[in-house]
Amino acid sequence: MDTLSDASLLWTRTGWRGDAGLDVAGGRIAAQLPAGPGGHGDWVLPGVPNLHSHAFQRAMAGLAERQTHPQDSFWTWRETMYRIAARFDPDSLQAVAAQLYAEMLEAGYTTVCEFHYLHHAPDGRPYAEPAAMSQALIAAARETGIRLTLLPVLYMSGGFDRRPLSARQRRFGHDLDGFLRLFEALRAGEDERLRVGVAFHSLRAVPPEAMSAALAALPAGIPLHIHVAEQIGEVQDCLAVRNARPVEWLLEHAPVDRHWTLVHATHLTAEETAGIAASGATVAICPTTEANLGDGLFPLRAYLDAGGAWGVGSDSHISVSPVEELRWLEYGQRLHTRHRNIAVGGEGDSVGETLLHGTLASGANASGQAVGVLAPGMAADWIALDAQAPAFAGAQPADVVDRWLFSGNRNLVREVRVAGEVVVSAGRHRAAETIAARYRHVVARLLAD
Amino acid sequence: MDTLSDASLLWTRTGWRGDAGLDVAGGRIAAQLPAGPGGHGDWVLPGVPNLHSHAFQRAMAGLAERQTHPQDSFWTWRETMYRIAARFDPDSLQAVAAQLYAEMLEAGYTTVCEFHYLHHAPDGRPYAEPAAMSQALIAAARETGIRLTLLPVLYMSGGFDRRPLSARQRRFGHDLDGFLRLFEALRAGEDERLRVGVAFHSLRAVPPEAMSAALAALPAGIPLHIHVAEQIGEVQDCLAVRNARPVEWLLEHAPVDRHWTLVHATHLTAEETAGIAASGATVAICPTTEANLGDGLFPLRAYLDAGGAWGVGSDSHISVSPVEELRWLEYGQRLHTRHRNIAVGGEGDSVGETLLHGTLASGANASGQAVGVLAPGMAADWIALDAQAPAFAGAQPADVVDRWLFSGNRNLVREVRVAGEVVVSAGRHRAAETIAARYRHVVARLLAD
Repeated sequence: MDTLSDASLLWTRTGWRGDAGLDVAGGRIAAQLPAGPGGHGDWVLPGVPNLHSHAFQRAMAGLAERQTHPQDSFWTWRETMYRIAARFDPDSLQAVAAQLYAEMLEAGYTTVCEFHYLHHAPDGRPYAEPAAMSQALIAAARETGIRLTLLPVLYMSGGFDRRPLSARQRRFGHDLDGFLRLFEALRAGEDERLRVGVAFHSLRAVPPEAMSAALAALPAGIPLHIHVAEQIGEVQDCLAVRNARPVEWLLEHAPVDRHWTLVHATHLTAEETAGIAASGATVAICPTTEANLGDGLFPLRAYLDAGGAWGVGSDSHISVSPVEELRWLEYGQRLHTRHRNIAVGGEGDSVGETLLHGTLASGANASGQAVGVLAPGMAADWIALDAQAPAFAGAQPADVVDRWLFSGNRNLVREVRVAGEVVVSAGRHRAAETIAARYRHVVARLLAD
Repeated sequence: MDTLSDASLLWTRTGWRGDAGLDVAGGRIAAQLPAGPGGHGDWVLPGVPNLHSHAFQRAMAGLAERQTHPQDSFWTWRETMYRIAARFDPDSLQAVAAQLYAEMLEAGYTTVCEFHYLHHAPDGRPYAEPAAMSQALIAAARETGIRLTLLPVLYMSGGFDRRPLSARQRRFGHDLDGFLRLFEALRAGEDERLRVGVAFHSLRAVPPEAMSAALAALPAGIPLHIHVAEQIGEVQDCLAVRNARPVEWLLEHAPVDRHWTLVHATHLTAEETAGIAASGATVAICPTTEANLGDGLFPLRAYLDAGGAWGVGSDSHISVSPVEELRWLEYGQRLHTRHRNIAVGGEGDSVGETLLHGTLASGANASGQAVGVLAPGMAADWIALDAQAPAFAGAQPADVVDRWLFSGNRNLVREVRVAGEVVVSAGRHRAAETIAARYRHVVARLLAD
């Protein structure tokens, strides 16, 4: 089946269209067609890009909610994360990533930007095949059908003071030459659903001259991601060593433009907020992880007012749902300001529409792929919401997106396609049972070690 | 089937028990039995009490997320709510409540405290059967099997200044005699799954002498609920007219004890926080609604330190899930304090265990029913979590509750019983299709009017 023309409604930048179908060829949308006679009547939207993922962390969801320190924080959570990270090998990484990616597809994410730093064996030595862990992620993406932007992470030092990596960080590390070899090897395998970019782990993990040298050596136009300003402690350390706040430093010393994605960017001055917006970079906001880790709230309203680009990521995967990310992005602002309807658009868009437009619009730049819009030449990646669900009773086009994002807890995604291929139908991934069975087995062994 | 004895694990105040089954008679737990031979191996917990519900609002979930005012707030949201409230009659109320209660059961709520103020016809005149709207809620509860504590609401004035009810509030109103007649009529219909209490809408809607007169006329020991201190505006108005903050006034002028449930209690001084805890009253916290309405954050940590009783309610039903309520109760605190693991117990309980113990422990007082503990003499109301779900891969008893509350978005509730009767199996309510079909029809008509 290569065509959507069954009288569903199509979401576009200017609202729902009832008069168009989609013709698909080679995984792309070939043309918009006149709609055919009545069919299921779903609400059809572009798949949601997931801008930030550490796949292995899916296996520790729910395992860090017990007090380990009188003042638990991001830094105590990181201890649990390192302990579990140390147990992965390529097979277990593939099993966990496949479960995660199937869950993402069922939830309506069709592209994932994988911020991947688990490169080497647990003792820090490269695998015989140095890209083995990256290949495990690529294999998981292929198994599930999700579109992948793989971002191998450059991770060189343990702090702003350039201390060497700790024993537990050693499997994350590369020198620049080794990293560039990994990047080139992965890049040679790009295909219709796989794009390779690069991530700098953070300013504390990449010294300034290494970042410059990497940027000089890398091809122009690839997606570049970096964790920045997630924690107050990081802001303070950066100020102490580099005499500037993290975002301030980055905007001044790196060629930040629309190819860059700044992950979190939680702690910003007004100047930094405006500076990111003006640069054209995307902010990857991760509301559920930032809440779980106690990071803080992104200054959403000011950033929207400055015209900034942004999207969401599920990051640590304590939640795997664009609904929960977008809902709580808005709700966090409401709790803080004690007003309602914060993320409203300039053209009468509702909160849901503004949030969805924002996160779709950033997908192409952040992922380096032709996603986020259903139009000729773009990827045939879409999700169909179940118009028969009780949540849509009496729905009008103008309230469909708000109902999806702000009504109830059932997953309303009925069908999902990536590159035209059906990967989820009746709400279930085509290989959900097999992937889940392997996941249960692998994780039980992983946690028992 | 009257017995649970298939080697599932039972949640108790002191942890999971693997050595006990449950024998049920007359809807109550008759005895704890030795566990039988291995069965499905679910995780079995008491059903969660939902301490606060306005059933009709389920039909407007997702319909108030569009800007109607330059500074949208609780008060602009209330306009939408009044407009939709005006459209209900007993049949449509039953259809909407049945859908809602089926959703609650599927999510793991087995008892609902219904704070019911939609008493009369839209023009404010009583129905020929004055309890018709209450009877619609009772019928919806019977259809779905949920345990109901019905709280007819006394609503007399439109503000602290005793202004009369507005045209749109008139269908909520009673004089005291009419209200007491309604209460007595409903009370005569109590049965194993139905208890009748009373709610005072709020301090602004019930003048002091009316509250005193009602309390003098009502039987002792019934559940008493009241909305209090949800909004800063309400605190200011109360201060201006009664020369005290709402909770301060209530603790001073009403015999607040364990039979009372204070709904929201968001804006508290340290003295008020300690005062509620000392009174034995329960606070019904409604995290998703309080976020949607921009109310603010309840001072959870201080209240836990004072030993206060609390539970959760889904209130406006923009979410119907104890998972989302409890998760975001904790996450709101983390975002505010920038620390993790705030609601931890004194005895090494994890965040999930502390939250679940708290909300279960308050159920009996708040609902006036024998719920919240699986022990002889208590209601046979329980939920079984699906131990085969990927979210429980490699689970140990000590992390089951955290995984339920802090991992992913799938509903993990497999089976639900109320008074021993299976109402949800394989995650679906026994009448889900029929109830949903009627709901879609009724809501489409309701919104089209």
